[in-house]
Amino acid sequence: MGPKLGILAGSGELPVRLRDHCLMQGRDVFIIAFNGHTDPSIVEGVEHFWTRLGSAYSAIKVLRDAGVGELVMAGGIQRPTLKDLRPDFQTLKFMTKIGSVGLGDDGMLTAIINYLENEGFQVVGADDVLGDILARDGVYGRVEPDAEAWADIDRGIGVARALGAQDVGQSVIVQQGFILGVEAVEGTDALIKRCAELKHSGAGGVLVKVKKPQQERRADLPTIGPVTVRTAAESGLRGIAVEAGGALIVDRDAVQATADAAGIFVIGIEVPQ
Amino acid sequence: MGPKLGILAGSGELPVRLRDHCLMQGRDVFIIAFNGHTDPSIVEGVEHFWTRLGSAYSAIKVLRDAGVGELVMAGGIQRPTLKDLRPDFQTLKFMTKIGSVGLGDDGMLTAIINYLENEGFQVVGADDVLGDILARDGVYGRVEPDAEAWADIDRGIGVARALGAQDVGQSVIVQQGFILGVEAVEGTDALIKRCAELKHSGAGGVLVKVKKPQQERRADLPTIGPVTVRTAAESGLRGIAVEAGGALIVDRDAVQATADAAGIFVIGIEVPQ
Repeated sequence: MGPKLGILAGSGELPVRLRDHCLMQGRDVFIIAFNGHTDPSIVEGVEHFWTRLGSAYSAIKVLRDAGVGELVMAGGIQRPTLKDLRPDFQTLKFMTKIGSVGLGDDGMLTAIINYLENEGFQVVGADDVLGDILARDGVYGRVEPDAEAWADIDRGIGVARALGAQDVGQSVIVQQGFILGVEAVEGTDALIKRCAELKHSGAGGVLVKVKKPQQERRADLPTIGPVTVRTAAESGLRGIAVEAGGALIVDRDAVQATADAAGIFVIGIEVPQ
Repeated sequence: MGPKLGILAGSGELPVRLRDHCLMQGRDVFIIAFNGHTDPSIVEGVEHFWTRLGSAYSAIKVLRDAGVGELVMAGGIQRPTLKDLRPDFQTLKFMTKIGSVGLGDDGMLTAIINYLENEGFQVVGADDVLGDILARDGVYGRVEPDAEAWADIDRGIGVARALGAQDVGQSVIVQQGFILGVEAVEGTDALIKRCAELKHSGAGGVLVKVKKPQQERRADLPTIGPVTVRTAAESGLRGIAVEAGGALIVDRDAVQATADAAGIFVIGIEVPQ
């Protein structure tokens, strides 16, 4: 059990899982919730602080006063623009300090992590806290990809890595060799649902998620959980492939059970670097 | 005025424009329309033949009997899968002959064009017929991109070309440095409308369309027309950039007028190869 953990909570299943894991272990948590991004239910019954991205600097003092030494960033923040942040004075100073944040997500996340570490926090990855959530090589559950699914997985990895090299998305959906959809800022669930409208008859598509070649491991690794599996199954996908060692699988047991119940595969794949 | 022109008509503005251009010039046309892909209004009052993709081979005899020597492919066909085609015997033979069509669009289109030429047709590009629709370098209309728009254009070209190298889409939408959306099979209009939901406040995004590095010039060059410009303006985009010499601008005068009326820019850009 570590020291009080500060969770910078975005959307999705991961922040909830982190909170529950800590509470079960008796570890104190302090949640920083972002207006418009964080699901309000996550802060119930735990220490927390709501802020908007443009005032995020104020969270640093709050975290320090609350005795937080270790921080984890978890869940998606749909990227705002700098102009959209309407920064307060301190946040503006912070932005000036991290300098040009570059145009992609990754440069910005790395700059934020470096800044937080300079402020005296230790920033850890969600897998450092949860231990067993980094995807491993091999099938989760009983269903295995067939030859056609393997071809789709290979094609998806090629496209997703090309996108990742441009610091764009991490996810693509491939069906029978065709790229049905590519994720940018809309999020994986939106991608899956959109592709349900675009799919062809015959064998369903495959969702492929890999990390970007330059990705900061402690922020925003591609993540799936039981909800992803359920959405995928409902949208006619036949499986999900994630990068072994480069993606997070939240609640592995539920992922396996959901995949088996739906008859779709979930697999971790070694991706040559 | 050339010989009777066969138009293999997909969706969008280009097939209509080709038909009208020929009719104005007194040139005969014969339209091959595809069930579920071609807008029925285009065949009114002209020689035509409806087919489904799985029976497309039959169109070859129809075209020959109609005295067509020159063919043009125009407009989008949302890619079907081979399995989806339910090919008839002749079409199956054709497919066997063109062999493995590869996994991307481009390989298939090139194979189809080669096959049609072996059958004795001359396949030309829409710009061979219409003359002045290949995008040129420079601004169409009065609005010019500012420095921030130029940065978005540059970022968009980089991403679109990386995607194109994977034989995926040709279009991306960039706003203030962020890739809002990437086109796969959903089509440009669907991309634009989706990104309207995802955009940030402040200066609007830019639609960037470039051809794929290996693109067959005679099929499926990225295309915009007045409808694209109107949709873009309605969705809050501030401009459209297309590859000079690598994209088609259907109805240039209307594109300029629409862009000027909406206060957005349309520009052709030289893309280093």
